[in-house]
Amino acid sequence: MRKNTKVNAAILIIGNEILSGRTQDTNTSTLATWLNSLGVKINEVRVVPDEEKKIIETLNILRKENNYVFTTGGIGPTHDDITAASVSKAFGLKYEINKEAFKILEAYYKPGEFNEGRQKMVWMPQNAKLILNPTSGAPGFYVENVFCLPGVPSILKSMIGGLKNKILGGEPILSHTISLRTVESEIANSLSKVQDANKDVEIGSYPFFHAGKLGVSIVLRSEDKSKIDICNSQILDFIKAKKIQIVDR
Amino acid sequence: MRKNTKVNAAILIIGNEILSGRTQDTNTSTLATWLNSLGVKINEVRVVPDEEKKIIETLNILRKENNYVFTTGGIGPTHDDITAASVSKAFGLKYEINKEAFKILEAYYKPGEFNEGRQKMVWMPQNAKLILNPTSGAPGFYVENVFCLPGVPSILKSMIGGLKNKILGGEPILSHTISLRTVESEIANSLSKVQDANKDVEIGSYPFFHAGKLGVSIVLRSEDKSKIDICNSQILDFIKAKKIQIVDR
Repeated sequence: MRKNTKVNAAILIIGNEILSGRTQDTNTSTLATWLNSLGVKINEVRVVPDEEKKIIETLNILRKENNYVFTTGGIGPTHDDITAASVSKAFGLKYEINKEAFKILEAYYKPGEFNEGRQKMVWMPQNAKLILNPTSGAPGFYVENVFCLPGVPSILKSMIGGLKNKILGGEPILSHTISLRTVESEIANSLSKVQDANKDVEIGSYPFFHAGKLGVSIVLRSEDKSKIDICNSQILDFIKAKKIQIVDR
Repeated sequence: MRKNTKVNAAILIIGNEILSGRTQDTNTSTLATWLNSLGVKINEVRVVPDEEKKIIETLNILRKENNYVFTTGGIGPTHDDITAASVSKAFGLKYEINKEAFKILEAYYKPGEFNEGRQKMVWMPQNAKLILNPTSGAPGFYVENVFCLPGVPSILKSMIGGLKNKILGGEPILSHTISLRTVESEIANSLSKVQDANKDVEIGSYPFFHAGKLGVSIVLRSEDKSKIDICNSQILDFIKAKKIQIVDR
């Protein structure tokens, strides 16, 4: 498999329930962790309401700016599930019954239970390819570089395993964390110098409060392990000079 | 206080740690719940990396399309905290020492501890107004309709209380939930008819799996209680006809 060095993606969370605060989104973190492990960097995340115009407009921006787009939510049987219809319009494709999905759900449900509500879930953009659902039958789908997944976190998690060979990642993004018993202001200047000397490594600084004590986690991220190592040793140098304690975290 | 019927906002989450999956964002849910209680509807949420160009570009879109924008993250003392500098550029304002913030932090820290790293936190857009921080001293700030808050959830929570009289909300958005022992496909058609007959009420349908059983929560949202009541009674009618059990959730 050819490796591009830079592969990126956007996540589009579709759902009023996130914007109202009723539901805490956890799919972003699931997808981001998984995509990072495949060498796909997340450029941005957007959360939009169940409104066709907004979904189409946002999707048409994101799919052009990114190698991949992953949507979550809006693929169930109810009136507020409008992702498949919106994706069809975004691509200018017919919204129609996907025969393969129909067969899957016809076999999944007991005779007579594949009712009108459930049949809505087999309506997809023309020629959409399926993302199988080992948890609850109804498949997700993808069109070109846009992958549409459900909003229920446990179902989403069970479906991404089947996607691995459909995503062409770049070099895996490596990460190294150094956690310190200090506060950010004590290390800000030294860390800034290390960042200036190591432009290719993304250095993040994250304060934490754990077991009653303050600390800072420094996170180094790069595709190149040797660059992380250089950065790490420069950080260890100033930590030692400042007599700052390294802690587990 | 005059009430606009429609007041909206966007949330801009700034931070590589969310995009890498390292950190689970919870500020969206905190802000959304709080803003909804003030009658402010969230139009969209975006998560962007610690990159000046992207922050400026996104902020300049969101602040024109929404009554309010709330940013989280990037206002600490380290090199990756670039929110204040980026907001200055977005508004074409000088990035300078805020004297009031300087005095607050000078008084907050012990003599000699208000070091260079900490002093970075008083650099803000010219004439920015402060958002006081009862937890850890360093204030947030706002410029016109853009409110900049920290990324650490506990600190953010402690700061939004002080913002209440600075946000002019619309009519409070009321919400009513009916939880049912059913699956979405059983109610999809009936619910769709209720939605068609009640265009002004936002009706959401959310499957859940709780204590080993499947169910669906129907959420009705509107500024007008009488409209929610009408919708509710239409839903109770079809639930009764279908002999579906109402459950606590």
